[in-house]
Amino acid sequence: MLEKVYGRNLVAETLKLGRVRKVWCLPGHPFLKEVKEAKIPYEIVDRRKLDQFSHSGNHQGIVAEAEAYPLYEVEDMLKEKDGLLIILDGLKDPQNLGAILRTVDCAGADGVIFKKHNSVKLNATAAKVSCGAIEYVKAAEVTNLVQTIKKLKEKGYWILAADAGGTSAYDEMKYDMNIALVIGAEGEGISRLVKEQCDFVVSLPMKGHLDSLNASVAAGILIYQIVSERAHRG
Amino acid sequence: MLEKVYGRNLVAETLKLGRVRKVWCLPGHPFLKEVKEAKIPYEIVDRRKLDQFSHSGNHQGIVAEAEAYPLYEVEDMLKEKDGLLIILDGLKDPQNLGAILRTVDCAGADGVIFKKHNSVKLNATAAKVSCGAIEYVKAAEVTNLVQTIKKLKEKGYWILAADAGGTSAYDEMKYDMNIALVIGAEGEGISRLVKEQCDFVVSLPMKGHLDSLNASVAAGILIYQIVSERAHRG
Repeated sequence: MLEKVYGRNLVAETLKLGRVRKVWCLPGHPFLKEVKEAKIPYEIVDRRKLDQFSHSGNHQGIVAEAEAYPLYEVEDMLKEKDGLLIILDGLKDPQNLGAILRTVDCAGADGVIFKKHNSVKLNATAAKVSCGAIEYVKAAEVTNLVQTIKKLKEKGYWILAADAGGTSAYDEMKYDMNIALVIGAEGEGISRLVKEQCDFVVSLPMKGHLDSLNASVAAGILIYQIVSERAHRG
Repeated sequence: MLEKVYGRNLVAETLKLGRVRKVWCLPGHPFLKEVKEAKIPYEIVDRRKLDQFSHSGNHQGIVAEAEAYPLYEVEDMLKEKDGLLIILDGLKDPQNLGAILRTVDCAGADGVIFKKHNSVKLNATAAKVSCGAIEYVKAAEVTNLVQTIKKLKEKGYWILAADAGGTSAYDEMKYDMNIALVIGAEGEGISRLVKEQCDFVVSLPMKGHLDSLNASVAAGILIYQIVSERAHRG
């Protein structure tokens, strides 16, 4: 499947990955030389056309059509026992997505679920930061996160979140059930409707001045805690 | 103390933080309006001058003189018991530094040590990603990391690193000593000379296709494991 990407950094990364199939840009754009050398079809267009293609996003003079990363269905990620899914509730930063994909691969978790709209995408920045994990980790885009969570519960998954107001310490829980771990958005945390669906809310000790960790760091600590607790259960 | 910063993103972040004291830029630079409004002294200069100020770095038409973040001495970070220092061995990405500063604050660790040359700096990108932790966490810049590590050992600190070839599982160690945790550079890992100084090398399970985690995620998992193990020791 093809998708539009735009802006200098993202187009540059997508070019490096060899995923660009067509380019539209302003006359004399600095990337033109590379595009020509790579024999990628291109059109020189005006700013109005680029605004259209990028839905008035900050395209910085260039829009590309790129090979999208394959998406999976949530059903393809389910397990009978010791399942571990990561749900990203409105995460925005592709750097965080990339780092989380890398952790999910390393920890052997089963997949990542995020919202179709108003959320991170499997783009070239996420791909770069993931160090290749984007090629291996199953990812699913869903329209309605709350509906997906309800379905996961029907399938026997327990919904876990971390939050300052958590009722159990993250390192005193038993994780001997199928788990979907919710990671909140940068700054905003977990949305109210999603939080209402959570079966457990755990807390991490916060001993300093801040009240939360970076999203991908928090995800890493929790994912490895779950994997470690399960391994030592035997 | 003042330091030079350059490049659009870094100058923009430093301006936002109110730390810029003077600006040099090309005529008509897009940041000039903001610089004038903030009443920051500026000079319009040519590219040659900017190349000089930035030591021929990629200045993108603008160099600023900014208030540097205060640095500490390693001696000011030492503790008698349950000390925890983080040593960054050649880390390059200010995003990782920012996330690590945030974790160090949250976990209540005692400070971060990095090399003066060829390493991350306490800059505006790190400040932004740290979400303010840069204001609270003690950081020290040292000329020779191996010498610093030797001094830490004399002071009763044990040097811990994580590596694929580690001899103990990270979650089976007792962390009941003063610890300096070494985090390796993105891609390259821990340098040979530093690794030779390590008292313990632990490993994290790697169950997927990649053989390492993002540096700030690995740091987070290990720091919280140490804090958790110590808390449960009572």
